[in-house]
Amino acid sequence: MDLKEQIHQMGRQALAASRQLVKLSTQQKNQVLLAMADELTASEPTILEANRHDVAAAKENGLTNAMVDRLTLTSARVTAIADGIRQVASLNDPVGEIIKEWTRPNGLRIQKKRVPIGVIGIIYESRPNVTSDAAVLCLKTGNATILRGGKEAIHSNRAIAAALQRGGEKAGLPLHSIQLIPFTDRESVRHLAEMDQYLDLIIPRGGAGLIETVVSLARMPVIKHYDGICHTYVDKDADLNMAEVIVVNAKTQKPSVCNALETLLVHRDVAKEFYPRVGAALAEKGVEIRADETARTLLGVESQPAAEADWTTEYLDLILSVKTVDSLDAAIDHINHYGSHHSDAIVTRDEAAAERFLNEVDSATVFWNSSTRFSDGEEFGFGAEIGISTDKLHARGPMALEELTSYKYLLFGTGQVK
Amino acid sequence: MDLKEQIHQMGRQALAASRQLVKLSTQQKNQVLLAMADELTASEPTILEANRHDVAAAKENGLTNAMVDRLTLTSARVTAIADGIRQVASLNDPVGEIIKEWTRPNGLRIQKKRVPIGVIGIIYESRPNVTSDAAVLCLKTGNATILRGGKEAIHSNRAIAAALQRGGEKAGLPLHSIQLIPFTDRESVRHLAEMDQYLDLIIPRGGAGLIETVVSLARMPVIKHYDGICHTYVDKDADLNMAEVIVVNAKTQKPSVCNALETLLVHRDVAKEFYPRVGAALAEKGVEIRADETARTLLGVESQPAAEADWTTEYLDLILSVKTVDSLDAAIDHINHYGSHHSDAIVTRDEAAAERFLNEVDSATVFWNSSTRFSDGEEFGFGAEIGISTDKLHARGPMALEELTSYKYLLFGTGQVK
Repeated sequence: MDLKEQIHQMGRQALAASRQLVKLSTQQKNQVLLAMADELTASEPTILEANRHDVAAAKENGLTNAMVDRLTLTSARVTAIADGIRQVASLNDPVGEIIKEWTRPNGLRIQKKRVPIGVIGIIYESRPNVTSDAAVLCLKTGNATILRGGKEAIHSNRAIAAALQRGGEKAGLPLHSIQLIPFTDRESVRHLAEMDQYLDLIIPRGGAGLIETVVSLARMPVIKHYDGICHTYVDKDADLNMAEVIVVNAKTQKPSVCNALETLLVHRDVAKEFYPRVGAALAEKGVEIRADETARTLLGVESQPAAEADWTTEYLDLILSVKTVDSLDAAIDHINHYGSHHSDAIVTRDEAAAERFLNEVDSATVFWNSSTRFSDGEEFGFGAEIGISTDKLHARGPMALEELTSYKYLLFGTGQVK
Repeated sequence: MDLKEQIHQMGRQALAASRQLVKLSTQQKNQVLLAMADELTASEPTILEANRHDVAAAKENGLTNAMVDRLTLTSARVTAIADGIRQVASLNDPVGEIIKEWTRPNGLRIQKKRVPIGVIGIIYESRPNVTSDAAVLCLKTGNATILRGGKEAIHSNRAIAAALQRGGEKAGLPLHSIQLIPFTDRESVRHLAEMDQYLDLIIPRGGAGLIETVVSLARMPVIKHYDGICHTYVDKDADLNMAEVIVVNAKTQKPSVCNALETLLVHRDVAKEFYPRVGAALAEKGVEIRADETARTLLGVESQPAAEADWTTEYLDLILSVKTVDSLDAAIDHINHYGSHHSDAIVTRDEAAAERFLNEVDSATVFWNSSTRFSDGEEFGFGAEIGISTDKLHARGPMALEELTSYKYLLFGTGQVK
């Protein structure tokens, strides 16, 4: 059987599984999840053994320490993955929710009801915990998954997926509900992305190259996360103490994540007062500055001139680009033009300015007087997150269980005809 | 300027317009809509003159009478288009709705708010009224549109789009909110579908060839409508009087539409009683039957044997395929396998059977004891409809104003940091 036929067979099997999953109650799904967690814990020796193969190969292939660390599983990390599954079991199941209900003049009752999406393809890179995290969130919402992990983690991914399916089946999980593509060549991504007769949705999680490949090939909807080029705009009516605390936190608390600050915009009217203090506070945290001339003059710390490319760069590091703007409009225009529509904040006491910013900045999450670091499913109280979408259709911003569902209309009649 | 650059310029202009549209209040948008309706009425002579060119060309090119009829505008039809705009002005504006609102333990208040999508591309075929219908629904929800109509209606489309933009601008419509691509070669579809830096969504409305082209090229989300292969399943516990009325209505009341019945499934236990009466009733309406052997024997009217292809054919005509099934499960399996996930009905007195059917049939709209002809935005009470989606992401089933919106998260803080 060739590669394409193998992947199509997985598609057919996933579709068949999804038809069975729709029949499971919330209680049945939760029992399956708990059994999966137990089996994952019981399989720890096998999983760690598989992981040692991946880690050894990674070191041989000269992967960076950071990459090897992301790949490495320990007993504590396996326990954390299993605990994550148990936590998902405890979350509210959105499937079955009646979103709306109304009755028409002809007596037809209409229900808009939340249902599973069907079959979801997930393509991801090195972290093996995604194998469990993604499959489990999809399963909680009644979806079958086809997973395609990176080659660095293939042994770990196989061991985790096998444990999940094995544990789940003991508690009634339909066969083929969770399938991992056992090979990692690029062609498998193509076949998956073109297989819209079986896949309802594809979610790429990884670098720009992977996302571009999926976007250009996919025939089904894609939900993706491009860059997080997040801004904080310090307005002329900002509380500058608050602004300083927010800027330093958004930039330095965890610079490697997508909701960290990348570009600071400061209104010219407060530049003289704000730049020296924020400059000192950022310097103390070791932040490297790339700024316009006004800012460089006033910041009072070493800095580089900002180039055009700085406004579109997601540093994910202790680097900050800084620009002085003449107005709220200029700030909004800069963010809409250069930003990635992810998470952007205004610091101001002026309610009208805040309202305009929140309305006119075209981003998934917009903040008034807060750090952008709260753009996160956990911080929103969603309990779990499959990612943050920079798309505008179906799912935008932190994406949790509800975004892994679709809906259908149920019409209850008594013989109505037209 | 080459074709691609011209379309990219329209994209940039549409994006700029969408940034202005987001600032308009509901009242301002409604004033714009009413001004558009007035200008359309005032432009009737110009529109009818342009339409005469299209109709003459269509006749010269040997288009069928049905196609020429769809293309032809009259004074009454222009009035109907203008009235349609006034009706959209009277509808509730979903933009600005607070979908959810909650406060986190750290005091951050989170609003999930309905917002415009941004820029929507609409590709459609012959009917010139779509130029107005689509642009107006998008405008009501604060979206800019780029329209690409079929070549048969190009003169009519240009005249209508010009009237809408001209009338709207008098009342404050931002420049380039409604743009029609002035050429109709296939390459323009490609450039539009690839232009995901400007277009948030593309909606193809037309035949399978157009939809396939858009699906294979598009980099942005596509919302589409494939076939409407609708089923009615007459269960063993059906009220057979009701079943007969529903089947005849769903098949014959307007056979040319997507929610008309195409395949009848009948439980073997009621075959002997139901087939002769429904056969006679359908024959009276001139319905041609393609059926399995059991049905052919019992229907008591002339019929052809059903071929495999009949189960996947959208006849859009007075033709019906008929199959006898042994169980509810067999009916559900047939519909999920051969259907188009559009609209499917069960007729039964058995509540448990109905519940299983409604839950397990994977279609946008599922009916219990009703004709499938009610799968329609007007019949749902939506007031207007841009189409019926057979997709499962973002919009499923009848698609109205709400489905032309996205959402964003607004976070209101008092200096929160992480």
